Amino acid sequence: MIPRHDPELKAFASDNYAGVHPEILEAIARANGGHQISYGEDVYTEALQDVFRQHFGETASAYPVFNGTAANVVSLRSMLENWQAVICAESAHIHTDEGGAPEVAAGIKLFTVPTPDGKLTPELIDTQAWGFGDVHRPQPGVVSISNTTELGTVYTPAEIKAICEHAHQLGLKVHLDGSRLTNAAAALGVPLRALTTDAGVDVLSFGGTKIGLLYGEAVVVLNPEAARGVDYLRKTYMQLSSKMRFVSVQFEALLAGDLWLRNARQANAMGRRLAEAVRDIPGVEVPRPVEANAVFAILPPEVTERLQKRFRFYTWNPAIGEVRWMCSYDTTEADVDAFAAAVREELSV
Amino acid sequence: MIPRHDPELKAFASDNYAGVHPEILEAIARANGGHQISYGEDVYTEALQDVFRQHFGETASAYPVFNGTAANVVSLRSMLENWQAVICAESAHIHTDEGGAPEVAAGIKLFTVPTPDGKLTPELIDTQAWGFGDVHRPQPGVVSISNTTELGTVYTPAEIKAICEHAHQLGLKVHLDGSRLTNAAAALGVPLRALTTDAGVDVLSFGGTKIGLLYGEAVVVLNPEAARGVDYLRKTYMQLSSKMRFVSVQFEALLAGDLWLRNARQANAMGRRLAEAVRDIPGVEVPRPVEANAVFAILPPEVTERLQKRFRFYTWNPAIGEVRWMCSYDTTEADVDAFAAAVREELSV
Amino acid sequence: MIPRHDPELKAFASDNYAGVHPEILEAIARANGGHQISYGEDVYTEALQDVFRQHFGETASAYPVFNGTAANVVSLRSMLENWQAVICAESAHIHTDEGGAPEVAAGIKLFTVPTPDGKLTPELIDTQAWGFGDVHRPQPGVVSISNTTELGTVYTPAEIKAICEHAHQLGLKVHLDGSRLTNAAAALGVPLRALTTDAGVDVLSFGGTKIGLLYGEAVVVLNPEAARGVDYLRKTYMQLSSKMRFVSVQFEALLAGDLWLRNARQANAMGRRLAEAVRDIPGVEVPRPVEANAVFAILPPEVTERLQKRFRFYTWNPAIGEVRWMCSYDTTEADVDAFAAAVREELSV
Amino acid sequence: MIPRHDPELKAFASDNYAGVHPEILEAIARANGGHQISYGEDVYTEALQDVFRQHFGETASAYPVFNGTAANVVSLRSMLENWQAVICAESAHIHTDEGGAPEVAAGIKLFTVPTPDGKLTPELIDTQAWGFGDVHRPQPGVVSISNTTELGTVYTPAEIKAICEHAHQLGLKVHLDGSRLTNAAAALGVPLRALTTDAGVDVLSFGGTKIGLLYGEAVVVLNPEAARGVDYLRKTYMQLSSKMRFVSVQFEALLAGDLWLRNARQANAMGRRLAEAVRDIPGVEVPRPVEANAVFAILPPEVTERLQKRFRFYTWNPAIGEVRWMCSYDTTEADVDAFAAAVREELSV
Repeated sequence: MIPRHDPELKAFASDNYAGVHPEILEAIARANGGHQISYGEDVYTEALQDVFRQHFGETASAYPVFNGTAANVVSLRSMLENWQAVICAESAHIHTDEGGAPEVAAGIKLFTVPTPDGKLTPELIDTQAWGFGDVHRPQPGVVSISNTTELGTVYTPAEIKAICEHAHQLGLKVHLDGSRLTNAAAALGVPLRALTTDAGVDVLSFGGTKIGLLYGEAVVVLNPEAARGVDYLRKTYMQLSSKMRFVSVQFEALLAGDLWLRNARQANAMGRRLAEAVRDIPGVEVPRPVEANAVFAILPPEVTERLQKRFRFYTWNPAIGEVRWMCSYDTTEADVDAFAAAVREELSV
Repeated sequence: MIPRHDPELKAFASDNYAGVHPEILEAIARANGGHQISYGEDVYTEALQDVFRQHFGETASAYPVFNGTAANVVSLRSMLENWQAVICAESAHIHTDEGGAPEVAAGIKLFTVPTPDGKLTPELIDTQAWGFGDVHRPQPGVVSISNTTELGTVYTPAEIKAICEHAHQLGLKVHLDGSRLTNAAAALGVPLRALTTDAGVDVLSFGGTKIGLLYGEAVVVLNPEAARGVDYLRKTYMQLSSKMRFVSVQFEALLAGDLWLRNARQANAMGRRLAEAVRDIPGVEVPRPVEANAVFAILPPEVTERLQKRFRFYTWNPAIGEVRWMCSYDTTEADVDAFAAAVREELSV
Repeated sequence: MIPRHDPELKAFASDNYAGVHPEILEAIARANGGHQISYGEDVYTEALQDVFRQHFGETASAYPVFNGTAANVVSLRSMLENWQAVICAESAHIHTDEGGAPEVAAGIKLFTVPTPDGKLTPELIDTQAWGFGDVHRPQPGVVSISNTTELGTVYTPAEIKAICEHAHQLGLKVHLDGSRLTNAAAALGVPLRALTTDAGVDVLSFGGTKIGLLYGEAVVVLNPEAARGVDYLRKTYMQLSSKMRFVSVQFEALLAGDLWLRNARQANAMGRRLAEAVRDIPGVEVPRPVEANAVFAILPPEVTERLQKRFRFYTWNPAIGEVRWMCSYDTTEADVDAFAAAVREELSV
Repeated sequence: MIPRHDPELKAFASDNYAGVHPEILEAIARANGGHQISYGEDVYTEALQDVFRQHFGETASAYPVFNGTAANVVSLRSMLENWQAVICAESAHIHTDEGGAPEVAAGIKLFTVPTPDGKLTPELIDTQAWGFGDVHRPQPGVVSISNTTELGTVYTPAEIKAICEHAHQLGLKVHLDGSRLTNAAAALGVPLRALTTDAGVDVLSFGGTKIGLLYGEAVVVLNPEAARGVDYLRKTYMQLSSKMRFVSVQFEALLAGDLWLRNARQANAMGRRLAEAVRDIPGVEVPRPVEANAVFAILPPEVTERLQKRFRFYTWNPAIGEVRWMCSYDTTEADVDAFAAAVREELSV
């Protein structure tokens, strides 16, 4: 049998268009053969705790789940009372792109806050963090932020620390949607814990799929007092993998060495390269800071249309002709250069 | 790096203790490389529809999901109005072993019926299929059966047909939890559609993980009028895989040829071999018919205890000393013989 | 304007066919006029706490809600973690007659237990109280009993105490559905607290509507450590009455004096009178003990049919011709005698 | 027994601080006595349908429920598929003041839109009405508006018609939260149907409590094709009153004659009177149009504080010193004049 697809084809649509990093596939093969206890009592999942603790500190506990939506929903459900709500950016993935999973599958209310750059601040949190003790108002219980944000920006450790301190003073917990946390850490040149444990984050959704895994994300409880029943909720929310050894061994391959960092650096470097390559092309505007692997650009609609026939990517805001180009761990310099050349070509038609 | 586990070790605990069949791993590797559209718009998922239609008929649509709990929940939610309930056996996996996912994650009420052998019948269904139009009583909307059942028994095509005809006459739809449907079909020597489409089943949870996949089950809508919004619900219930090409290519590898049948026959044959090997050992009782890959046995508790130190398996009913031994697609004759010898040894101590 | 209905007409269908006791209507009128803070901050609701504490002890807190389904759902939700389940009798109202409210509106899983007489026992609880710590099995968290039961039987203080002690030893909490608790207490000649606080019940649904209120039930938290967030959950589950003074003043009228007891004694006495009047009529069987205000009888179906044209009542089990006759606080001796005479007449046709 | 409260006391906090209109209490008394079938099969509920149809047209069906939160939740749930969301103003009661009931109790996602005056428009709806067919984005299914709005403004028939036409063109249904619909109709001098049925509204939450009922709101289905299963959902969401005759007879008393109009006119007239009385007091600003019974005012905080010791009312926006004064059906000219005098006094201290 031959592949049904052209393995040379690359897109700039999303980092989940990429396949599986070879070291990850090798790890899966290595864990294969023979029998292992299912549902997470295997030796790979046991070993995984140490791997996560090396990155996130001694109190961290990692619970692998299938995808990012689930990591967010299980995290938030474990942190909230049933009458509590989440404060998040209006651009947050949990609000815009998860099919209503928080509300529909888990009964979680969201309060959204408009932001200029996808980032919350203590002041922005305050626009919704009020009404405590009033039974009519859904009670704010958790602040959820994303790093990198959905707008390609990156929170610094100091920014996260300020949010956590403010939230904790108000009695709120902090959740971090880290589906691209590795990109954020690589962009800033800081360890993962600088953006999480050390900054005061309580529970983390740690992303694996976009940085090279076949599948797999993890709920990582950093503050054990901030979450209840994660092991039960993971099952109840349909996220307990029976052959969990294969999720765990992927995370081990990603995190025990520097694969996460190599992959994140490559994706980020390609993002920067792409931004530089197109920034000065007449007719292209790069309206947002390029801080990791996402590049936003404003193009004439007819150019976008022609370009999308050659390379797949998404229109972000049709009203102003804004598109999003996302680089992946497997994006190469040649890929970027070919794409930038195509942009130039289509703009000069 | 070397594996953390002994790849020669086998257990008789569950067919999900097994790893990934080599042909499945090869298929994953084949689909790797380059970029594919995420979230199911890839060429592998497109091709998958034909593969499922060859087995289940022209009206079938398959929606890959991550695990069996999810296949059941998404199936049932798509079939039911919010005020309707499911009738199932008291031993049904959805009732006993899914962490309350139907109720908690999807708000689905279950009416359970005690059965002698895990199998519903039209008469047993009638014990709960009443009260239509009474707003006080949760309205029966779906009958859910499992094949093979949780007690290792197998519904015949005629039995399923009788259930479907009866249910449909009452205005009820029929869901089949087929986490081991391949074992059932192999045991009876019938095609998969004889137990599903041709018997009148409306929606199927088709199991892949226990028959050799790395991960992956599928909601298969056989009667398009019986389910609403499966594509949306799959996302909302956190089951939309971003790198779906890899789930789909596994199913293709399983179903396009005869891998499913080879694997199921092997597991079933090992179940029979094990039953025959232990049936006449003094002190062992095999209280249930062995119709596929599960063998139930009654042993003295101290024997069970010693045996479990050598081979992992589950106690089913401690009150009567009943245990469950499950064979897998990778269980060999040598594995069975070694285990049967161990049973004999521990009983003669 | 004249009434649309015949105010002399009586039925034996349910105690909620009755209207409002005159003393209750007077209380409502007394609380009318002028303004009171809405949503429960009024002086009547404040005063109500003392009234409930006189009956249920110093730690009791009462939260009026609209109806019995809601009292049960809010009680249970406040007692359970999201991954926990309720153990109840198969005949429990929460399972059979609340439109799936526990599951659908509050995501609560039920484990049901068949009982001969509607009553759980420690032994019956044990049939479902297992699997603690196993993430696959919904975790038993609460035992819910009804007094009087749906089968007209009455738990004694000793029986409830035995259940509570057993449940607490297992780490389970106890909820009592007391939609007819007043009837149970009157039947036994014990104070309300003997069947609740003193027996170890943690949270109570206290019924008002069936014993003479216009509307209104109450969640009564007896053990403050057993419930979380009742005030918030009452709002979230749509049970916070804006003009709550009128619910509260009804409860005050019912409970501050002996109205509850007068009403319950009357209903119970009429139940006994009816049972005695029909027990010896040839063709009538009274198959269950008559312990409060419900009488179950087995009649020839054609007799039932004719009788239902004259007096409204419900068929309980059509398979065996069993009907249920319920007496109310406003049922009179003349009502009972007329009905018994009608039974005799229809049986002698 | 004497009342616990001063029946002369009035507040300007909310129209639900008022008691029960005498004609409503009389209606309740009239329906009392004897037995009536419970749960809505009584003659009063039967008669109620005609009453509602006189106001809302021949296709209208009314389903009484207990409170306004429930009317909204049951309405919305009956209109939406499980994967669909509601578009509403950011100030909507369902978002800000219902304890998260839509999300938590019914799994309903909300998309909120900032508005200057509490009113949606076709253009504002478009800011969220997009992404149809994209499984990642919760699918807009219903537009929900409130009339009067939470900011005291009133939609005209033409404004509602424009919204409905636009929504219907997009495949969206329209829900109207009419907890104060009578005030809106009285303010405009139009019949109730001009703002609902004739304007294209599909389902209405009709408010009774704030306009003089003891308790009771109604889900009114105007377009039978827009709602599914309201009778079942009303039970499941704990809103089926057992003694429903008493809810229905209240609505009959309100709507069969002109009580609704008299009450609404009085509340609105008092709103206008209050606005006029305070508008020119130095130090008072009335920043929003006074279109019905709500008056918003901006005052120095210390004045508000002193005034709240004399009359109860709510601070709306502490950041700018904005308060809300609400008039009720029982607010008198003397009440308004006394309050306005107090405002004047406290400002001149």
